[in-house]
Amino acid sequence: MSEAIISREELQLAARNHGMPLEALRFDLTPIGLHYLLTHYDIPQVDPSAWRLELGGLVERPVSLSLDDLRARPDVELAVTMECAGNGRVHVEPHVVSQPWLLEAVGTARWRGAPLAGLLEEAGVRDGAVEVLFTGLDRGVEGGEEQDYARSIPLEEALRDDVLLAYEVNGVPLPPQHGFPLRLLVPGWYGMTSVKWLARIDVLDEPFDGYQQRHSYRFRQDEDEVGEPVRRIQVRALMVPPGIPEFLTRARVLTAGEHVLEGRAWSGAGEVTGVDVSTDGGATWAEAELEDDTLGRWAWRRWRFRWDARLGEHELCCRARDDAGNVQPLDPPWNVGGYANNAVQRVSVNVTDV
Amino acid sequence: MSEAIISREELQLAARNHGMPLEALRFDLTPIGLHYLLTHYDIPQVDPSAWRLELGGLVERPVSLSLDDLRARPDVELAVTMECAGNGRVHVEPHVVSQPWLLEAVGTARWRGAPLAGLLEEAGVRDGAVEVLFTGLDRGVEGGEEQDYARSIPLEEALRDDVLLAYEVNGVPLPPQHGFPLRLLVPGWYGMTSVKWLARIDVLDEPFDGYQQRHSYRFRQDEDEVGEPVRRIQVRALMVPPGIPEFLTRARVLTAGEHVLEGRAWSGAGEVTGVDVSTDGGATWAEAELEDDTLGRWAWRRWRFRWDARLGEHELCCRARDDAGNVQPLDPPWNVGGYANNAVQRVSVNVTDV
Repeated sequence: MSEAIISREELQLAARNHGMPLEALRFDLTPIGLHYLLTHYDIPQVDPSAWRLELGGLVERPVSLSLDDLRARPDVELAVTMECAGNGRVHVEPHVVSQPWLLEAVGTARWRGAPLAGLLEEAGVRDGAVEVLFTGLDRGVEGGEEQDYARSIPLEEALRDDVLLAYEVNGVPLPPQHGFPLRLLVPGWYGMTSVKWLARIDVLDEPFDGYQQRHSYRFRQDEDEVGEPVRRIQVRALMVPPGIPEFLTRARVLTAGEHVLEGRAWSGAGEVTGVDVSTDGGATWAEAELEDDTLGRWAWRRWRFRWDARLGEHELCCRARDDAGNVQPLDPPWNVGGYANNAVQRVSVNVTDV
Repeated sequence: MSEAIISREELQLAARNHGMPLEALRFDLTPIGLHYLLTHYDIPQVDPSAWRLELGGLVERPVSLSLDDLRARPDVELAVTMECAGNGRVHVEPHVVSQPWLLEAVGTARWRGAPLAGLLEEAGVRDGAVEVLFTGLDRGVEGGEEQDYARSIPLEEALRDDVLLAYEVNGVPLPPQHGFPLRLLVPGWYGMTSVKWLARIDVLDEPFDGYQQRHSYRFRQDEDEVGEPVRRIQVRALMVPPGIPEFLTRARVLTAGEHVLEGRAWSGAGEVTGVDVSTDGGATWAEAELEDDTLGRWAWRRWRFRWDARLGEHELCCRARDDAGNVQPLDPPWNVGGYANNAVQRVSVNVTDV
């Protein structure tokens, strides 16, 4: 076994915050229970009959809505790939202490809800509005500050027609862990944006500077830097680890011969335009076959790659690019929070003749 | 932060194998996605139209059944608390390297399926039968042996009327991660017994000696010992950590005054007869109020305890006992596999006046 790298506190987080086992990349829509979950504090207990959504701040007509009110509004269903901004954190050096994600902090689901834009329009956004703030019912302490989890987005993002107040996932009411009874959904942005257990929406005349916006989720090279905010999901491809695993090490064993490697690719910053695969640790690359975006703009796309596996040890890699000119880096980028590490995945396999 | 205690390999397991966040002890039935999961190898992809259950070995009439055949049989629905035999492993000393469970490897669900006993009766168990073996579709390498996951139980356990071939959980078809399309369910036994992705049942004339029976899941003080098999779930109580958490450390903060502590207690070896609570680290104990077993014999029971929380640091503990004479130990028992550590839970809380 290798040396210890994770503390008890980080393990506590890993035990609570569920990753998507990578064989679940096979599913177009991630089954409930396999989608990744990151819960900052505790999953709150919400009585849906007492719950209301309050919309206020810089609006002409503040609004208060029950869950039935929201369900009676025009609705949209949208397949969305969601990824945690901390996905890949364990692979950055030096080590960053927080939720210790390897590569499993992703999932794709079909969310149904009421578009936020229509609600904002009815409430009447007043001149001078710049951001919209979303506050959840999950409460805890972070950086010494007791807080309700809260994050904002710029007004122009809030007015996109695909930003939803979602009450269903994969055809069923939100389970407690996904934000029951209501969550925000901002396609293309990292998951911390899509506030769960949503209770309040406030239109603001200046940028929100709460803990999760001011301190967390910023690209910084040292603690004192202000840094740029973490926003759009960076381009990434992941593959289903081929063959069968060894229980403890997850080392992969594969029989020699023809195999189809498969995986998914996505980007919040642009459309995925291609995926390259290497079967020799990145020395040479060849293009994978990329499926059409059958699930829509905001969901991952399947890719496949035929491989004639020869005996011996091989390192498989996949690397996606998008039409905004982004391509996955070969080495993990580092920042204080360990955010947005979209370096290429590397999977070692032992090809045998049995 | 404390020192590193967990290797990358163990973290890989923790990222795949989901725990139940302890605030979910509030639910009678654990929502899908919060129930614990332990998957030895990969979650297999199963085509339900091609899948069949084969029953053979020491029987008069071997049987082959489709999923529809199974659904057409008499069915039983049963609430069952399931726990991993490795729950609590991280708390044993010296450290045992395997799936690093803290205390979250538990969940309670309502399973529906066909009783196994009726099927065995129809097949006609022949004289000399001693065990029944269950083989899943999940394949991997463990201890240097390539294997399908397989475990047996004694014939008399297989003939219990509450042992099910389950195809539904909480009212829906099994999700992939819980064994779709069919799993065994042996109430009262640790979870490794309830084989998922079930494909074959074999009646045996001698005890099964496959890897998971011969090597894993045995109480041993050293590797060379044969040891006794791990079977029934040991008595345990867990509590919902009160108050709110600090994100990184999960340290709990609570306001002073009256609080109701709550949790659940269960045992596979007997009926739970009581839960004691300590608010001073185990120096003194008082009896909690134990709810009736509204979910039936095989599910956990809720307990509650009124606590007038005074300012300062407190260590809360809970300790269950059953009518088979078992009581939770104060200190973790040790064995080679780190199994069945049911030592009392300890939760530190900081009571403040804010």
